[in-house]
Amino acid sequence: MSEYTYEHKVQYYETDQMQVVHHSNYVRWFEEARTVCLEQIGLPYDEMERSGVMCPVLEINAKYLQTVRFGDTVSIRTRISSYNSVKLAMEYEIVNHRTGKVHCTGTSKHCFLNGEYKPVSLRREYPAYHEQLQRIYESTQK
Amino acid sequence: MSEYTYEHKVQYYETDQMQVVHHSNYVRWFEEARTVCLEQIGLPYDEMERSGVMCPVLEINAKYLQTVRFGDTVSIRTRISSYNSVKLAMEYEIVNHRTGKVHCTGTSKHCFLNGEYKPVSLRREYPAYHEQLQRIYESTQK
Amino acid sequence: MSEYTYEHKVQYYETDQMQVVHHSNYVRWFEEARTVCLEQIGLPYDEMERSGVMCPVLEINAKYLQTVRFGDTVSIRTRISSYNSVKLAMEYEIVNHRTGKVHCTGTSKHCFLNGEYKPVSLRREYPAYHEQLQRIYESTQK
Amino acid sequence: MSEYTYEHKVQYYETDQMQVVHHSNYVRWFEEARTVCLEQIGLPYDEMERSGVMCPVLEINAKYLQTVRFGDTVSIRTRISSYNSVKLAMEYEIVNHRTGKVHCTGTSKHCFLNGEYKPVSLRREYPAYHEQLQRIYESTQK
Repeated sequence: MSEYTYEHKVQYYETDQMQVVHHSNYVRWFEEARTVCLEQIGLPYDEMERSGVMCPVLEINAKYLQTVRFGDTVSIRTRISSYNSVKLAMEYEIVNHRTGKVHCTGTSKHCFLNGEYKPVSLRREYPAYHEQLQRIYESTQK
Repeated sequence: MSEYTYEHKVQYYETDQMQVVHHSNYVRWFEEARTVCLEQIGLPYDEMERSGVMCPVLEINAKYLQTVRFGDTVSIRTRISSYNSVKLAMEYEIVNHRTGKVHCTGTSKHCFLNGEYKPVSLRREYPAYHEQLQRIYESTQK
Repeated sequence: MSEYTYEHKVQYYETDQMQVVHHSNYVRWFEEARTVCLEQIGLPYDEMERSGVMCPVLEINAKYLQTVRFGDTVSIRTRISSYNSVKLAMEYEIVNHRTGKVHCTGTSKHCFLNGEYKPVSLRREYPAYHEQLQRIYESTQK
Repeated sequence: MSEYTYEHKVQYYETDQMQVVHHSNYVRWFEEARTVCLEQIGLPYDEMERSGVMCPVLEINAKYLQTVRFGDTVSIRTRISSYNSVKLAMEYEIVNHRTGKVHCTGTSKHCFLNGEYKPVSLRREYPAYHEQLQRIYESTQK
């Protein structure tokens, strides 16, 4: 499988006085979905960090097409859009669970760092992680 | 003046276990800076909403160049990059107060909505707001 | 049934640089659990607000017994500890899903307000809500 | 001086759909005020952590007396209510900057931990920090 779906129930504390979800939370939902995606791929992020590799965000983009409200549940579809052992990019689609409408799309770019915050090539230093990500990435290209 | 500067002292609750500021907070800092920018232009956002016009985020982009840490203070420089009565775009630069280095750049796009969440032309429905924004926008183009 | 259980998977953005969950998030988890509890009782909070009654927080208390970390899943047990038509109090216990240990206990107090932010007696103005809450509350006293 | 005052301008992202500040943010404002208080006392918290001592929250209490809204600025008054080298307690009062009315009161309790998350006596292991806190605490008792 090459696409991962994660469900998030909107929380009251995620709304703002415009009576919709505050836009900064969608960026957090991308992270929630990314974490679950990595977990399903077999790369739980807490284990990655414990083994010494961090995966910080280099860039984030979000397009807000339609508001999401308290009471809604959303599905976040995640896909690896590029990977080359030193960089990773992911794509997200936030879909209203009930209507199937797309409410937000986004992307994130990442690198890998060691405990000294230095860039790391997964191929060289974490070959098991590399093979896993490479395999999943290739399956999304078909 | 066509560029506005806002200072933010990093809070402990803004950090994450990577021991740097979590990336979603930069998006919130853009909002803090945007609010102060509008205020300095003479368009306090709380007054705008009370008069019936909301200015939601349509798109957000952030590039993270260097981490920001607890103990740091950042300056956020804000500029109106485009404005045409129905849409507004802004640019941000997050600068380490002590070193002068740029840690993050970003953009946001906005429209204007009335209380029924319908698009509004400021020129037609809020001419005073329009003239103010138009004037500032033109001054940034020089 | 008189106790409700809600599961929350710890998110990366909920951690701080002490490498544990930031204490302010437990207060948000209480809200998540409260929302699910009300929903299971048959009082979805989004419906309550649409029908004109808000249930703000008057007081919150949390005791942090043990840290929670990224990678953990917690169960939040919720109980109505008092209810009298104008006020509601709830108790929470945050339990590590894996070890069964209690990591945090807390309480919250609430009143009911109408759209003008004036106090409301559920018995008088929302008898259906009142009977539901009263019935659940009584079942917890047995 | 034995009381410290910190000003916070309410941010849009701190509001919720009740159109007031979400209650979890007051707990974060306590932290903001606590950080500034420690800084003014001569104990910047980022330096404390770098020197190996953390000061986690053991308990938090907040009473919400009146809502705070976007557009408001609040003053947070902070006081050390008890200190004995292994535990610290603080009191907070959130005051509307414009009206002088108290909107929220709260307390927090803390201990001191070393890098292994073990309790630490400041008197024994960080005597300079201890003397500073002891001196300030005594001045609040007069």
